[in-house]
Amino acid sequence: MRKVAIIGGGTTKCGKRQATWRELVQEAGKAMFDNVDNISPKDVEALLVGAAQPERFTFQVHVAPMVAEHLGIIPRKVIATTELMCASGQAAIRYAWACVASGIADVAVAFGVEKMYMPDMAEAQTNMACVLDREWDGVNAISAPPFFAMTAQRHMYEFGTTKEQMALVSVKNHHYSTMNPIAQFQKDVTVEKVLQSPMIAPPLNLFDCSGITDGAAGVILVPAEDAKKYTDTPMQIIGSGQASIGNAINNLANITDWVPLRMAIKEALRTAKISLNEVDIAELHDCFTISEIMEYEALGLCEKGKGGKFIENGEPYIGGKIAVNPRGGLLGCGHPLGATALLQSIDILQQFRGEVPKGRHVKGGKIAVTHNLSGPANVHSLMVYARG
Amino acid sequence: MRKVAIIGGGTTKCGKRQATWRELVQEAGKAMFDNVDNISPKDVEALLVGAAQPERFTFQVHVAPMVAEHLGIIPRKVIATTELMCASGQAAIRYAWACVASGIADVAVAFGVEKMYMPDMAEAQTNMACVLDREWDGVNAISAPPFFAMTAQRHMYEFGTTKEQMALVSVKNHHYSTMNPIAQFQKDVTVEKVLQSPMIAPPLNLFDCSGITDGAAGVILVPAEDAKKYTDTPMQIIGSGQASIGNAINNLANITDWVPLRMAIKEALRTAKISLNEVDIAELHDCFTISEIMEYEALGLCEKGKGGKFIENGEPYIGGKIAVNPRGGLLGCGHPLGATALLQSIDILQQFRGEVPKGRHVKGGKIAVTHNLSGPANVHSLMVYARG
Repeated sequence: MRKVAIIGGGTTKCGKRQATWRELVQEAGKAMFDNVDNISPKDVEALLVGAAQPERFTFQVHVAPMVAEHLGIIPRKVIATTELMCASGQAAIRYAWACVASGIADVAVAFGVEKMYMPDMAEAQTNMACVLDREWDGVNAISAPPFFAMTAQRHMYEFGTTKEQMALVSVKNHHYSTMNPIAQFQKDVTVEKVLQSPMIAPPLNLFDCSGITDGAAGVILVPAEDAKKYTDTPMQIIGSGQASIGNAINNLANITDWVPLRMAIKEALRTAKISLNEVDIAELHDCFTISEIMEYEALGLCEKGKGGKFIENGEPYIGGKIAVNPRGGLLGCGHPLGATALLQSIDILQQFRGEVPKGRHVKGGKIAVTHNLSGPANVHSLMVYARG
Repeated sequence: MRKVAIIGGGTTKCGKRQATWRELVQEAGKAMFDNVDNISPKDVEALLVGAAQPERFTFQVHVAPMVAEHLGIIPRKVIATTELMCASGQAAIRYAWACVASGIADVAVAFGVEKMYMPDMAEAQTNMACVLDREWDGVNAISAPPFFAMTAQRHMYEFGTTKEQMALVSVKNHHYSTMNPIAQFQKDVTVEKVLQSPMIAPPLNLFDCSGITDGAAGVILVPAEDAKKYTDTPMQIIGSGQASIGNAINNLANITDWVPLRMAIKEALRTAKISLNEVDIAELHDCFTISEIMEYEALGLCEKGKGGKFIENGEPYIGGKIAVNPRGGLLGCGHPLGATALLQSIDILQQFRGEVPKGRHVKGGKIAVTHNLSGPANVHSLMVYARG
């Protein structure tokens, strides 16, 4: 298997954008190509596009060829859209990586885009209701917020986790996103503000939840041995893990134990040939505050049930045990489904390059993981990146 | 790059099925695992699912984990859904191939499924309208039938192709599908019957068009060196080609010259290290009769503009220059979007194994290509398979 590196990437600003789907694609595409010298759209042989629900959000399918068109790419080896709901963008990165690793293509672009703001936002909410198994779980009115709310309730019951501890995740990630110019939310929040924000699904308040977001982003992948032709500061893909146990919630024997995340992190560390304490930065999928707490535990950053204490003690801050979501996470940056994993990866690249503001820079960071979950936390996807 | 083989596959019967999406998945999954000895769902490390528009046809996204669940697979290396509209299934095969070729996984399943019959069939038609670029082409009322009708009109004007010649494609493919027990349409048609069938978009009548179809199918891929552990009759993946020039129709400088198909077949033959006259069977994407005629020409089976003569002379029949669509094609078998490429590949496997009825068996066939186009023929995807 060939080693693969990411040589550059670019993003839109994320949020409620006065821009069409097409304009988001163009904006991120330009930023991506502007980020890398000596490469142009005509060099790209493979294009993989992460998009979760363009058919519903923008009434447009067959979107990978449209991205190709607006980026000026004529893919001559591989083209496809990948869907894995909230991990759709990581699915694109993974397929692009497989293309270059196998030798099928020498230059690949992994791109992600989602235009989620619709004229009728009730329709956007409806779209999110088709993620979980409609006949098994949807019928019981379970969509993402109620599912993660149940998880939080059970975690509070079993382990004594508090709403204040969950709010601290929001405080941390919103703080980091104040230093991220592409973030959707750029204001600090306090525990009090989180607790006083509108109730979404008990015990989750508004600021416990990531937003509805428009955004796009893309990265360029080449064989590691070619990377230095394009940049002095590439980022290596050194490992990955992905695991799934179905879509219906009842596949999780215990909703406070995300078995597939434990499987995926084990595989990611095994393939990267590293141990967890070598990881400097973790971009974890904080779709809800409880998610990040569950992830501390499943990754083994702390004991089971101690995720609340872990944030309370400041461990996931820069300077703590590990920097978790110094980008601002989904809570701070927004969650444009197909683009999210690309945004995470680009921020890691910028961390390694020292291009992020001082207040959220993990100095000397060399190894990072990025993580996305999808559906009711039954599917987990991780990449492991190394500087240089 | 590791060599990869397909060791077995299984399908549903295709057509207007009294079966839910879930039941289609289960039916094809059982058939697939029943087709291979010594392998079980727990051995599968990677699952790629081709599905074009499940969000619209069945109001369900995140479908790959649902397929995993109903097949009893717990993917521990790779999982994703691939979308490339009418080529979504081939996109799944291609990603599964990349997983095994790169060494990311040792056992992969490529699966495809589409439940297209809806309670309100007007809604199914509406769904098909979001394939082409909605703002550039959809606004002009262009969906698939009008696009291929324009192509046919221009082909008739430029080259003197006749409606009777197009009808002959339908006659051939419907004839072969009478011998295919999983085909949606199992009755012979005549040129007269095609010409007298309801007009869809001039000059295309109903029997010039492939159907709306429910169906599912899947194949299992392993490294070629492992294939004989599972079967005496595997099928090798020996080449592939894929090319795209955007989605909007105006990317085709000339609608009667499918440039990306010419690019993709050249790449497919180059990677397979064969010439076109070594190909015994071609499963070509006959979504409309004119498509197959255009494909004879773009593949170089006949001179440009002589596709009509090519079918008139019986060249694409078994015993002619090359057997085109001895499965019955999309015209005869139906076109369950995400499943179509899987159905083609499984039929090739059965051809190589001598498991198809005598009247449509290409005796001694050793090499085959399968082809799918998507969107307004701006994207073309090909696989090259060899017996043994």
